[in-house]
Amino acid sequence: MSEARNVAFLGLGVMGGPMAGHLARNGHKVTVYNRTAAKAETFAARHPGARFAKTPREAAGGADIVFACVGNDDDLRAVTLSPEGAFAGMRPGAIFVDHTTASAEVARELFAAAKALGLGAVDAPVSGGQAGAENGALTIMCGAEPEIYAQAEPVMAAYARACRLMGPPGSGQLTKMVNQIAIAGLIQSLSEALHFAKTAGLDAAAVIDLIKNGAAQSWQMENRTKTMLAGEFDHGFAVEWMRKDLAICLAEARRSGAKLPIAALVDQFYAEVEAMGGKRWDTSSLIARLER
Amino acid sequence: MSEARNVAFLGLGVMGGPMAGHLARNGHKVTVYNRTAAKAETFAARHPGARFAKTPREAAGGADIVFACVGNDDDLRAVTLSPEGAFAGMRPGAIFVDHTTASAEVARELFAAAKALGLGAVDAPVSGGQAGAENGALTIMCGAEPEIYAQAEPVMAAYARACRLMGPPGSGQLTKMVNQIAIAGLIQSLSEALHFAKTAGLDAAAVIDLIKNGAAQSWQMENRTKTMLAGEFDHGFAVEWMRKDLAICLAEARRSGAKLPIAALVDQFYAEVEAMGGKRWDTSSLIARLER
Repeated sequence: MSEARNVAFLGLGVMGGPMAGHLARNGHKVTVYNRTAAKAETFAARHPGARFAKTPREAAGGADIVFACVGNDDDLRAVTLSPEGAFAGMRPGAIFVDHTTASAEVARELFAAAKALGLGAVDAPVSGGQAGAENGALTIMCGAEPEIYAQAEPVMAAYARACRLMGPPGSGQLTKMVNQIAIAGLIQSLSEALHFAKTAGLDAAAVIDLIKNGAAQSWQMENRTKTMLAGEFDHGFAVEWMRKDLAICLAEARRSGAKLPIAALVDQFYAEVEAMGGKRWDTSSLIARLER
Repeated sequence: MSEARNVAFLGLGVMGGPMAGHLARNGHKVTVYNRTAAKAETFAARHPGARFAKTPREAAGGADIVFACVGNDDDLRAVTLSPEGAFAGMRPGAIFVDHTTASAEVARELFAAAKALGLGAVDAPVSGGQAGAENGALTIMCGAEPEIYAQAEPVMAAYARACRLMGPPGSGQLTKMVNQIAIAGLIQSLSEALHFAKTAGLDAAAVIDLIKNGAAQSWQMENRTKTMLAGEFDHGFAVEWMRKDLAICLAEARRSGAKLPIAALVDQFYAEVEAMGGKRWDTSSLIARLER
């Protein structure tokens, strides 16, 4: 357990809420802010010593580290750069750690803004989902200056299974993008495989049970096949969130010149899933599109 | 070890050769046939008790089980149904076991032809590659009548890590297709992820080392990333073989009505890899196409 610090946490959603809880249980003095204030009040009531604030600026006052886990680039700019944003309240030398999955561009923009104010900044998107947040077993991918990272890392340990500095500011977001790109076509291929198996009259579960020992194996195959075959799509990351992430990937690829033909096509497939009413289904719902 | 049987093995390629060797070492009396006769002669010289034959028909005479592992549907018809094919030499009650990755159609055709002659038939494609064949650690996916499968299974145990009856004749081939469909888009996604990482200036190996603990994990990610990043494409199944398999998958899907958009597109990507001179590169060479 790290030395107790004064910390602020902005955004108490399905990820941020449990993460802030781990910080409080690890002995840090936590002040929370949430756009819907009731959540912040409830959090403070449930965690001894925790307080809530009415603005990010107020939450950030006196904090050594300010964490954020919000929806997207615009939400992130609002809680940091606006007049009532955190940056206006942070003391020089304090560090901003962003757990939002956002663009590498906004990560660099916030780093520059922080630097100008004498603040540190770490872009630190996570993977592991709601369960990972609740169990304190997230993978955290960081972009930062090494000396800033070194200060933030012991505090993030409260909810990390693995936490790694991947490079300069923006590198955390870029690493998270690599993860999402690898997953997109993988789930589509698994969907096609299961769909093909069912159409061929095979026992798809028995097929997976056999082939999962070989070169087709994946975490998705081991953990999502059963629910996919049952048509249950409420076991993880939602389609609309995945589309947000893929939009970030595709925009970054447009800048860097990287070619992502399958990621781009799977994004379009997810658009069709959304049109089927699947915005909130989990990412494995690509199979539902094949089975219309 | 199973009771010693008289067996024939047709096709001593990189897969069939080691498989026939395991049969000989397990005490079975093996007669081999190969289109290029020299390989069969060499095999017989190296394995005490083994013999070679000049035609499939001659090899099959007196065998309890005749195995084949040849190139494609046409090769398979040639070694079974032609006048000098195995079926003309097999005694009633003998069993034909086909380890070729072929169409479900030809599997059903050979089953019917075998049945009419009083023979049994098992379609039994394998996965695990050359290493799996050499180490006797193949996964074998079978389609057959249960009582026929029960006779063949103890003999196949000579080179099986897992051997499973998946359903009636053709089901082994269909199961292998599910495996290839699952792999096709997975490798493309992994290629896009690595390509994106490099283009973004990340240390791609470090990225994979971090994300392989989560939902993007796959056998391909764990076993092929290093060689893909090094541009080494000589570590497994060749592009031209994958295209043969994908052609079978796409033809079967055309019959069954299954939709395979990504498998179809990845097949086209492999056509581009072939045009780059990559017919014999391994399947992970999809990344080379992105990096042209």
